[in-house]
Amino acid sequence: MKRRIYLQMRSWEEALEAFFERVKPSRYDRTEIIPVKEALGRVTAEPIFSRLSSPHYHSAAMDGIALAAQVTFGAAEDRPKQLRVGAEAFFVDTGDPLPAGTDAVIMIEEVHQIDAQTVEVMRAASPWQHVRTVGEDLVASELILSQGRRITPFDLGALLAGGVVAVSVKRRPRVAVIPTGDEVTPPEEALARGPREGEIVDVNSTIMGGLITEAGGEFVSCPIVRDDPREIKDAVRSASREGCDVVVVNAGSSAGSEDYTPSIVEEMGEVLVHGVSIMPGKPTLLGVVDERPIIGIPGYPVSAVISCELFLKPLIAAMLGIAAPKRESIRVVPTRRLSSKLGVEEFVRVRAGRVGERVVATPLPRGAGVITSLTRADAIIRIPRMIEGVEEGEATEAELLVGKEAIERTVVIIGSHDLALDLLGSWMRKDDPTLTLSSNHVGSLEGIIALKKGYAHMAGSHLLDPATGEYNLSYIHKYLSGVPVKVIHLAYRQQGFILPQGNPRGITGLSDLVRDEIRFINRQRGSGTRVLLDYLIEKEGIDPAQINGYEGEEFTHLGVAVAIESGRADVGLGIYGAAKALGLAFVPVEQEQYDLIIPQAFCDDSQVQKVVEVLRSKEFRTQIEGLGGYDPSRMGEEVAV
Amino acid sequence: MKRRIYLQMRSWEEALEAFFERVKPSRYDRTEIIPVKEALGRVTAEPIFSRLSSPHYHSAAMDGIALAAQVTFGAAEDRPKQLRVGAEAFFVDTGDPLPAGTDAVIMIEEVHQIDAQTVEVMRAASPWQHVRTVGEDLVASELILSQGRRITPFDLGALLAGGVVAVSVKRRPRVAVIPTGDEVTPPEEALARGPREGEIVDVNSTIMGGLITEAGGEFVSCPIVRDDPREIKDAVRSASREGCDVVVVNAGSSAGSEDYTPSIVEEMGEVLVHGVSIMPGKPTLLGVVDERPIIGIPGYPVSAVISCELFLKPLIAAMLGIAAPKRESIRVVPTRRLSSKLGVEEFVRVRAGRVGERVVATPLPRGAGVITSLTRADAIIRIPRMIEGVEEGEATEAELLVGKEAIERTVVIIGSHDLALDLLGSWMRKDDPTLTLSSNHVGSLEGIIALKKGYAHMAGSHLLDPATGEYNLSYIHKYLSGVPVKVIHLAYRQQGFILPQGNPRGITGLSDLVRDEIRFINRQRGSGTRVLLDYLIEKEGIDPAQINGYEGEEFTHLGVAVAIESGRADVGLGIYGAAKALGLAFVPVEQEQYDLIIPQAFCDDSQVQKVVEVLRSKEFRTQIEGLGGYDPSRMGEEVAV
Repeated sequence: MKRRIYLQMRSWEEALEAFFERVKPSRYDRTEIIPVKEALGRVTAEPIFSRLSSPHYHSAAMDGIALAAQVTFGAAEDRPKQLRVGAEAFFVDTGDPLPAGTDAVIMIEEVHQIDAQTVEVMRAASPWQHVRTVGEDLVASELILSQGRRITPFDLGALLAGGVVAVSVKRRPRVAVIPTGDEVTPPEEALARGPREGEIVDVNSTIMGGLITEAGGEFVSCPIVRDDPREIKDAVRSASREGCDVVVVNAGSSAGSEDYTPSIVEEMGEVLVHGVSIMPGKPTLLGVVDERPIIGIPGYPVSAVISCELFLKPLIAAMLGIAAPKRESIRVVPTRRLSSKLGVEEFVRVRAGRVGERVVATPLPRGAGVITSLTRADAIIRIPRMIEGVEEGEATEAELLVGKEAIERTVVIIGSHDLALDLLGSWMRKDDPTLTLSSNHVGSLEGIIALKKGYAHMAGSHLLDPATGEYNLSYIHKYLSGVPVKVIHLAYRQQGFILPQGNPRGITGLSDLVRDEIRFINRQRGSGTRVLLDYLIEKEGIDPAQINGYEGEEFTHLGVAVAIESGRADVGLGIYGAAKALGLAFVPVEQEQYDLIIPQAFCDDSQVQKVVEVLRSKEFRTQIEGLGGYDPSRMGEEVAV
Repeated sequence: MKRRIYLQMRSWEEALEAFFERVKPSRYDRTEIIPVKEALGRVTAEPIFSRLSSPHYHSAAMDGIALAAQVTFGAAEDRPKQLRVGAEAFFVDTGDPLPAGTDAVIMIEEVHQIDAQTVEVMRAASPWQHVRTVGEDLVASELILSQGRRITPFDLGALLAGGVVAVSVKRRPRVAVIPTGDEVTPPEEALARGPREGEIVDVNSTIMGGLITEAGGEFVSCPIVRDDPREIKDAVRSASREGCDVVVVNAGSSAGSEDYTPSIVEEMGEVLVHGVSIMPGKPTLLGVVDERPIIGIPGYPVSAVISCELFLKPLIAAMLGIAAPKRESIRVVPTRRLSSKLGVEEFVRVRAGRVGERVVATPLPRGAGVITSLTRADAIIRIPRMIEGVEEGEATEAELLVGKEAIERTVVIIGSHDLALDLLGSWMRKDDPTLTLSSNHVGSLEGIIALKKGYAHMAGSHLLDPATGEYNLSYIHKYLSGVPVKVIHLAYRQQGFILPQGNPRGITGLSDLVRDEIRFINRQRGSGTRVLLDYLIEKEGIDPAQINGYEGEEFTHLGVAVAIESGRADVGLGIYGAAKALGLAFVPVEQEQYDLIIPQAFCDDSQVQKVVEVLRSKEFRTQIEGLGGYDPSRMGEEVAV
């Protein structure tokens, strides 16, 4: 048996405190002086004081005439004062300096010009009226920006106004990211020729580079290092030698046989924390080498992100002397129970959108390897360590990854998966970029139940009623009593067997599914496709137990298709578009009807109307037709309930 | 009299609609294909689909042994199954491909190794357990990012995982900024030799450049053009020829004699809007030249910013096909009445901070030339066109320029101005960058009244009671009855006459103030310095009416100092530090006591305690001493009330 080190388990707050206590990021004192014009977004290293007063001369604040206020004393409507132009009164434009001896401006609209030499005023001016006096904006020596200020566009203007052309800012902390692993390959290389089996494409360096840049650090991308303690040590040393302020070793921080980071850091410096009670992100290592912080970041991309968010970003912020950015949070209602392990703080990625009074949150896959669970997420629900989960429907806090207004402008669709929905979302955004279609694939029946619970604006459904041969209607009557709905037809779709290229096993009909050597891949209970399968095999008198793989459940058509393509199964039931997308063979079985069910309560929402509008456009219909396997001839029509 | 064109006055919403209706920014279709590694923050020009499935091979999700699940069927605690290593069971690390013929992984912790050739398992494995199957994250052909998506660090990872190394993004709209004006000078040139009288330092180009960059555009900085219609036309043409997508002409869009933008745009294209009912920003011009949008932006920096915020930023967002960013808004309570002109939407910059249950907002100077009113602002209150103002204490919405948490971490100090307060704020931030000291200068008495109203955490005060010779206490008893407070001493300060260098008029005492040729500059009513002056002249038997300039009010010591320096007055009363800052002469008159008054209710706030902590630190005391004119020997001591 191989060597195993077990991890400690600290809360991330404790871990961060121990880390900061030792590495003292607030003492980071590397500064540089840069031109103000390049200082946008940088952080001031010290208070910046004005070198000049601004304005630097008394100037006219209006177009008009400048004069000494006292020459106007006594002027009135019925007793105008005449003044000699060029001697007592001087025409000025906004921004002009006040001529010597003048201390006030009268607006041009209030001046009556008698002739070229004479003007008349009807009112006394008070001294310094309509004059921008020296220092109105800034007085020389005055504080312009305090230290630890992230410089805004306005600040650039204030600095220049105060005569400051170069400014002392914190140097961006240089963060070296060292990717390690024998199987890790640079994306350019792997993707140019197609990645090999066993090869891990290094996506983490790029993700972390983005996070470092956003946090205000300088990303130093290091070459990939093999799983060899000596080479890793060399890489750490060289990062340190090249003046990096933080070293990140990506992967190798866990407790496996080739996880060298803990022993390397122990040998070269000090391990402060190894193992944090978070999920994903548990095998994080925090330490110090050469008096510089070093972080061992786990290898799964979502783990890497969570670990960066909790440790690397606050570290960079503290080194810059700014507050770590906080995400806005909102109350959301999970549409499913979110179970969680006691003792571990879980970071659950969710899609979110306002449906009626509530913002509903549908969890995305929990796997630490699923980077799309972050790209698709609108928010993250943190489930605290001492809580075993959050109940369905129980309001809880979520941290937003998108703007609050995006949550308000989201159409939530739950139910059956269809390829047209992604395109639908894209079409909506083309017309109105503030809109989002949040599509959650749980199967047709779950979708209808979600409508009943108020979790969605609409549900996609293709549920066959074997008794009537009709789609969806009987299910609506059964599960949505008391919820008046409209049904908008999306398309007829071709369902059939998805098969490896060339159909090597010669599958042509349902009877082939019971053959001993055939491995079937099924869809989840409650999905329209499952209902269809069960109806078909019952009609044929086939017992589910006869079908190898009947228990294996996929949640989408593409999930079935990729299971076939990758050799996990020999056949599955799904739509033509999914087979076509992966270049697989297809044997048609049945044409079915796919509809959108929309509660009346939401039919007047402008967002929902936008969906219907797109469905009724000819261009969209043409595009769906092009996917193959769709008959969109009645797309957008209302189906009588 | 000079020619005047009068502006129309449209609401900015109408103006923007008319502008977009004509220039159709959503049709902007310039795209470019860039490497994913450089795509952070860019906007997708089309939906991006996956080219590969990810993972691209079935891989172990755990360290352990890979095997065919079926060989474990029947295994149990009391009936372990022995398996041959290398034939039935294969050691794998996380990420390794599954050896041929295997379809499940058992965690290393659950494997019992008998000898080099044999392992034992105690439980049946189910097929595909602890395996990341092909496409778990992304299936080839699946949508990765919809169009109009601003690319995040996570997105970079998802794109690479999906085999996408280059991505089609909207080209950043190129925005040419043409500064115009005979008196306008580049900051580098003006500041290198010191700006001349009448010269306007071009700070706007840099501010607008920052705004354009932040909005996702490409800032094209053009040379300054003189006030000559032909030259301005040439500059517009050349920007257009060089492929700029938007042209901004800075200043010259108003209705003055040298405001050429309206006639130029009329001649070269079409004026869509001239004049918007906003303040600042009224003389904005929106038009089209060569089928490209052109914006005439007013010259005062705050006007320029508001105009960019309302028109240029939404234009860039619409061209990119993204939602225009919205600022978070909060309810605030203004500490003063905010009057506003009917028919004009006003943008009032305010400092804001939470004091007890409310977030209080203190207005900053309204002048369109005061760029520091933006750098110092935490939020902007918009007063709608049809409202004449917002009452003091009446809750209203404000748009945040800083994070919400900064508002929570702000110490609000209102009252007398002292140079030490700026340094105090900087020291607080050095220790804890989440803290802000928001210091509002309204004079000592106003500060005490603000405490009574619950508008501040503390007030700085130096109010002499002529009857007792004591400072502050009698005022506290009179104005803060029912509000128990602590008084923390800040310093003794030297007050005296601030005079031009060399004291050319030979002012040595109060009696000089009544001399005919002497122009005095006063402080505002209720300020400690004004109270001191009134006490001193009364003692000398001087009548205020005898003093030239007694009515002219400045709000700060530096304001008085700069009035002297710039020749607006010959003498004022103020602290030594202000005279020293501008290199002016100073004749001491009186040493006074400056204290911080803190309601008991706030004394336990950690932020407030931080203030007291800094005051009690030796280092801070030393720095204040260095300012000159301060005796900080008792700084931080509590004064008995």
